[in-house]
Amino acid sequence: MDFKLTEEQELLLSSIGELISKNFPDDYFRTCDESGKFPVEFMNALAENGISLLGIPEEHGGIPADMVTQVLAIEEIGRMGAPAYLMTNGLCIHNMLKFGTPEQIAKISEVSQTGIPGYSLAFTEPQAGSDNSRIATTYTRKNGKVYLNGQKTFITGAKDSPYMLVLAKDPEAKDPKHCFTMWLIDPTAPGVKRNDLHKVGWHMVSNCEVFLDNVEIDESDMVGKEGYGFIHLMGNFEIERLVIAAHALGAAECAFEDAAKYATQRVQFNQPISQFQMIQLKLTQMAIKIQNMKNYVYRTAWESDNDISLRCSSAMCKVYCAQSSCEVVDDALQIMGGIGYTNDTRVSRLWRDIRVNRIGGGTDEIMVYIAGRQITQQYQNK
Amino acid sequence: MDFKLTEEQELLLSSIGELISKNFPDDYFRTCDESGKFPVEFMNALAENGISLLGIPEEHGGIPADMVTQVLAIEEIGRMGAPAYLMTNGLCIHNMLKFGTPEQIAKISEVSQTGIPGYSLAFTEPQAGSDNSRIATTYTRKNGKVYLNGQKTFITGAKDSPYMLVLAKDPEAKDPKHCFTMWLIDPTAPGVKRNDLHKVGWHMVSNCEVFLDNVEIDESDMVGKEGYGFIHLMGNFEIERLVIAAHALGAAECAFEDAAKYATQRVQFNQPISQFQMIQLKLTQMAIKIQNMKNYVYRTAWESDNDISLRCSSAMCKVYCAQSSCEVVDDALQIMGGIGYTNDTRVSRLWRDIRVNRIGGGTDEIMVYIAGRQITQQYQNK
Amino acid sequence: MDFKLTEEQELLLSSIGELISKNFPDDYFRTCDESGKFPVEFMNALAENGISLLGIPEEHGGIPADMVTQVLAIEEIGRMGAPAYLMTNGLCIHNMLKFGTPEQIAKISEVSQTGIPGYSLAFTEPQAGSDNSRIATTYTRKNGKVYLNGQKTFITGAKDSPYMLVLAKDPEAKDPKHCFTMWLIDPTAPGVKRNDLHKVGWHMVSNCEVFLDNVEIDESDMVGKEGYGFIHLMGNFEIERLVIAAHALGAAECAFEDAAKYATQRVQFNQPISQFQMIQLKLTQMAIKIQNMKNYVYRTAWESDNDISLRCSSAMCKVYCAQSSCEVVDDALQIMGGIGYTNDTRVSRLWRDIRVNRIGGGTDEIMVYIAGRQITQQYQNK
Amino acid sequence: MDFKLTEEQELLLSSIGELISKNFPDDYFRTCDESGKFPVEFMNALAENGISLLGIPEEHGGIPADMVTQVLAIEEIGRMGAPAYLMTNGLCIHNMLKFGTPEQIAKISEVSQTGIPGYSLAFTEPQAGSDNSRIATTYTRKNGKVYLNGQKTFITGAKDSPYMLVLAKDPEAKDPKHCFTMWLIDPTAPGVKRNDLHKVGWHMVSNCEVFLDNVEIDESDMVGKEGYGFIHLMGNFEIERLVIAAHALGAAECAFEDAAKYATQRVQFNQPISQFQMIQLKLTQMAIKIQNMKNYVYRTAWESDNDISLRCSSAMCKVYCAQSSCEVVDDALQIMGGIGYTNDTRVSRLWRDIRVNRIGGGTDEIMVYIAGRQITQQYQNK
Repeated sequence: MDFKLTEEQELLLSSIGELISKNFPDDYFRTCDESGKFPVEFMNALAENGISLLGIPEEHGGIPADMVTQVLAIEEIGRMGAPAYLMTNGLCIHNMLKFGTPEQIAKISEVSQTGIPGYSLAFTEPQAGSDNSRIATTYTRKNGKVYLNGQKTFITGAKDSPYMLVLAKDPEAKDPKHCFTMWLIDPTAPGVKRNDLHKVGWHMVSNCEVFLDNVEIDESDMVGKEGYGFIHLMGNFEIERLVIAAHALGAAECAFEDAAKYATQRVQFNQPISQFQMIQLKLTQMAIKIQNMKNYVYRTAWESDNDISLRCSSAMCKVYCAQSSCEVVDDALQIMGGIGYTNDTRVSRLWRDIRVNRIGGGTDEIMVYIAGRQITQQYQNK
Repeated sequence: MDFKLTEEQELLLSSIGELISKNFPDDYFRTCDESGKFPVEFMNALAENGISLLGIPEEHGGIPADMVTQVLAIEEIGRMGAPAYLMTNGLCIHNMLKFGTPEQIAKISEVSQTGIPGYSLAFTEPQAGSDNSRIATTYTRKNGKVYLNGQKTFITGAKDSPYMLVLAKDPEAKDPKHCFTMWLIDPTAPGVKRNDLHKVGWHMVSNCEVFLDNVEIDESDMVGKEGYGFIHLMGNFEIERLVIAAHALGAAECAFEDAAKYATQRVQFNQPISQFQMIQLKLTQMAIKIQNMKNYVYRTAWESDNDISLRCSSAMCKVYCAQSSCEVVDDALQIMGGIGYTNDTRVSRLWRDIRVNRIGGGTDEIMVYIAGRQITQQYQNK
Repeated sequence: MDFKLTEEQELLLSSIGELISKNFPDDYFRTCDESGKFPVEFMNALAENGISLLGIPEEHGGIPADMVTQVLAIEEIGRMGAPAYLMTNGLCIHNMLKFGTPEQIAKISEVSQTGIPGYSLAFTEPQAGSDNSRIATTYTRKNGKVYLNGQKTFITGAKDSPYMLVLAKDPEAKDPKHCFTMWLIDPTAPGVKRNDLHKVGWHMVSNCEVFLDNVEIDESDMVGKEGYGFIHLMGNFEIERLVIAAHALGAAECAFEDAAKYATQRVQFNQPISQFQMIQLKLTQMAIKIQNMKNYVYRTAWESDNDISLRCSSAMCKVYCAQSSCEVVDDALQIMGGIGYTNDTRVSRLWRDIRVNRIGGGTDEIMVYIAGRQITQQYQNK
Repeated sequence: MDFKLTEEQELLLSSIGELISKNFPDDYFRTCDESGKFPVEFMNALAENGISLLGIPEEHGGIPADMVTQVLAIEEIGRMGAPAYLMTNGLCIHNMLKFGTPEQIAKISEVSQTGIPGYSLAFTEPQAGSDNSRIATTYTRKNGKVYLNGQKTFITGAKDSPYMLVLAKDPEAKDPKHCFTMWLIDPTAPGVKRNDLHKVGWHMVSNCEVFLDNVEIDESDMVGKEGYGFIHLMGNFEIERLVIAAHALGAAECAFEDAAKYATQRVQFNQPISQFQMIQLKLTQMAIKIQNMKNYVYRTAWESDNDISLRCSSAMCKVYCAQSSCEVVDDALQIMGGIGYTNDTRVSRLWRDIRVNRIGGGTDEIMVYIAGRQITQQYQNK
């Protein structure tokens, strides 16, 4: 066993730290948050510095990197207080490389160079949240064209990415396991309507209800094999969960460090509050959770790099990190007291932002459902 | 022992329920929250219907009521989704009746009739949060006038109430236990500057930094005995803690009921999600916490009505209710999933709002500090 | 609402405290625990002093008392460090009065006068724990006699009580809801074999596997209506849960008080450890849980006295008290450190004893199952 | 980063599994536990198979191994249900190699070959638990001999190991930081009295009060430098904490696996209880904690192998593993229900045994104290 970072990894982390601390002070992100603005400049800078190109093959304009390195980068971005939750570039291109046509890959690779995620994923529907099988958006064919109809919701980045990947159902398919297909569409096309949802956090990225009313597309917009859309996406969800865990971890570290520094500076009752056992207890519990999260994220990434199945581990890693990061950030807010509850601190923004990680990418409950069944199977007949 | 509500109490609760469900649908409060507007119409209605006059003596235009009845009313307002945290009318007049001059009582009583809290309490300072003894705002006398100088912060309602009660220090006082005095001032007077703080929640009420720059007031603006300001307020804080516990409880019930209803209606995997054990477990744990909060709040109110010291019990009641209500509302948000994270549900507003209860009115840590020392003393030499 | 004890209740509690502190020092109970001896002298004393006769009608040699008074007595016995879990006298006679024949009532009443529970309840079977419907012990008739066959397990008091109440199934019954009947038997009769189970705690009372091999009884040994045995017992389980909650509460108070006293006396780092915030935090959290347990137990007892259904409340009260008392006693052990882990303190005995309350009388999980379904039903269609 | 075990490590783990499953079925350990017998045969077998010689240099009859391999072995022994808490052989020789004379090293190495820990560590005293500085046992010199006087307590293995290492104070030392010295004595020497303490668990090893009444020893019995006894031991405590964490982890895995298997076999309500979400939730939470413990233990061992300071990490690792293993084993007991509370399952023994890990080797509170101060220092002036 070896827990050491490589020199390259150390260098990468320094460069991320430097980029953000020099060019993107928290004021930048606070302003984006308050005005609901996608941080284009920041996303561009990540790409220009190669950070958001990690894991994309060289032939598609990227920089090869294993998953351990990628999660380290995401964690570090989060630790610097930046919205690491926007780092879905890798996921986008990852999908496309697996299932896309050369033309589709070229389209998304091109967008990747700007740092902006190539497409939003239009998956969830009002009646199909945890139970994806209920997806009801349809695709039908007529006169050589394909038409999409239905309603999607909670589509993150629907207004920020140039493309949208829509999962739709063939209403005439007979096999319920092979009725879903992915389509890559232009979200500004006629028939597409996007309504902003107003959320507790994640104000820097749009999140929309999307209405698809006879949206006309071509056969060439199909991504992957017809009838295999759902199956294609499933594998990707495991990586998505790991990525969520990594940015949850980063946010927790950011809040922890802010709170720890504050505690050593804030004087009450004639001493820094960090001298009080109740504060030291909190800080220690936070530090333990952060170490656990780090270990879990790195191990799961390493498993990915070593072709070990992530099905169970990514679910457990995600639910642990999503919950623990909420606890850590909540403790940080508490240590910072009244000021922690105001926009004057980034801890309050993190507190609002990270709560969604226990819902998006699969709820806590679905993670337990996935892991619980597999654990059970493992001990059957033993 | 008797846990029964009186008929009058039952009637009162029905009338509150009716008033709010008829006249103040959640849209009203959502709009106030989104636009940062004090809900004047609602506060007026509470007064018109006598609800916010409960506990104020008849001779001052109020309706006599014991503390049990008052907390029941606050709880019910919260349970209906309304901002029960604004119900500080009783606290305002309560203070004034104890320490104010007839003129001061008259002023505040008059405001009470509108339902709007008579004054904001300017107590906390940047360097004096948990450690109140560090309050540095001064009052000095010159030519028969009194001058206030200093900075206050986290002053709830500073822009919404017509008066402000300022705790200030006599810089020349020799006895550190008798150097603070209360003054009732006009927050629009020359020399007073109020800067809005932007918070995670409680958007319906202003919360300000207040700068006092040579604010000229009169001797007759003194409230209570000179040098006893701190001691006067301390007793009141015990009631404030009970009131916070009551509205935290109400908010928790509101979120619980929304989530329980949602769970019976939301179908996934071909059944209402309320059929899943993970959801039933959450609902049961929430219901247990709510019952505990109710019991604690009622018992503490009963102790107040029976002249039993609340020092320890109000601290324990407050920390339990503040924490448990956060847990209950967080569980409610989780049950409601993505939609629970959007402004489309009031649960998301409650989630942002109630977090402050673990900080304001004395942090969790200060509550433990108060209770812990008393418990320790109780078992000394036994 | 009124949280005051009556003078009679106060007197009763004093008399219990006096009886135990004078005559039953902890050495007595420690010796019983170490030698696995039923504390006959203590049980006799409880009866002689009328304490274990509370709630039994006068005509059957008892002392009328409402349920609130009964739980107060059980709590106080537990608080004094005595095995309140043996206080099932009331449950025994309670059942018998409801369903027994005059002869059966007389038998059990007579035993009651000694303080020893009249019978053990032979209900659980190896394959029928949480799922009672799987009870497989049968009763069959032949030549005017009745024969019991089957295996029971976890039968508390099987060797300590003079009678045993056995739930058995008519193998030919057609209606699965009406196939169980109760029989009152002599546990020393031919065909009955009792094997001691060795448990983590509760060493003062036997707990047995019971084998019934053609045990011959009479028709007159039937208790209650044929086919209604299960239904008869169900109602009783609600009271049993309340009783378990009450003695769990008492044990928690006992451990809390021992730990609080210890903390004020144990000096480390030149001060009593009670001065450390980490200890004060623990004590405060323990005190809050104890107050919650008290409130829940009293309220549920009051509901029982007022003919309000206990179905949901007794389940929630039981799971809360069973879990919280384990937490409180565990914290007490922790505060007492090494010595808390030895038999030199009663806290270690309590720690072993109370764990079973999360299993016996219905597991935590079954309590949640009962409460969860009812909560769900309550919010259906609302 | 690399999480892979080496082939040698895999082989070692298999051989441990095989040794225990073939030769030491749980009956063996249950009998030792019930009769309070030190499992000599098992300890011998560990040595014969080289397992308890890991980490001891070849020249002293051992088998070189890094710390990662050692904790893996301890974990595996625990996972097989064996008392890994007895694996203090390595600690004993580790100390002696650092500070002992060649003669002392030879003595202890010889004992090591039997698998039995060479000595018990007589450190704690009635008034010196967490606060070691209060150690009051003295050593005084007279006529060329040394005399020990005082009282030790909670001395694990005092009756099982052939030697005892006593920390004693020079009553005339002037420098309080250099007044303690270690002495290696024969625990059956005149003047030594050992009283068994009766504990909740760890019944396989003696735990004694030790009275030292003018115990005569020689100068050559001194271990290490005079006046440096305390400082010598401190460094060793960090490794002890890691070892405790490793066996706590092993015990948790053992209980988890027993419970997981039981849940898939135990049928209630017509299905294995592992099908119920409440059980799956428990199993998933247990599995997550186990993964966290593994990661933490391995990382800390790796840090030890790489000469990184363990001061903070060993304290955090120990408190996390001690607490989490208690939670996991408690959940396992709960899943197994009534039978989990009896001696018929090893889970009940583990439940009693592992509780002490939150006290011995430094309490939870001391771990937080150690870590909390270091975290605080780290963020000072940042």
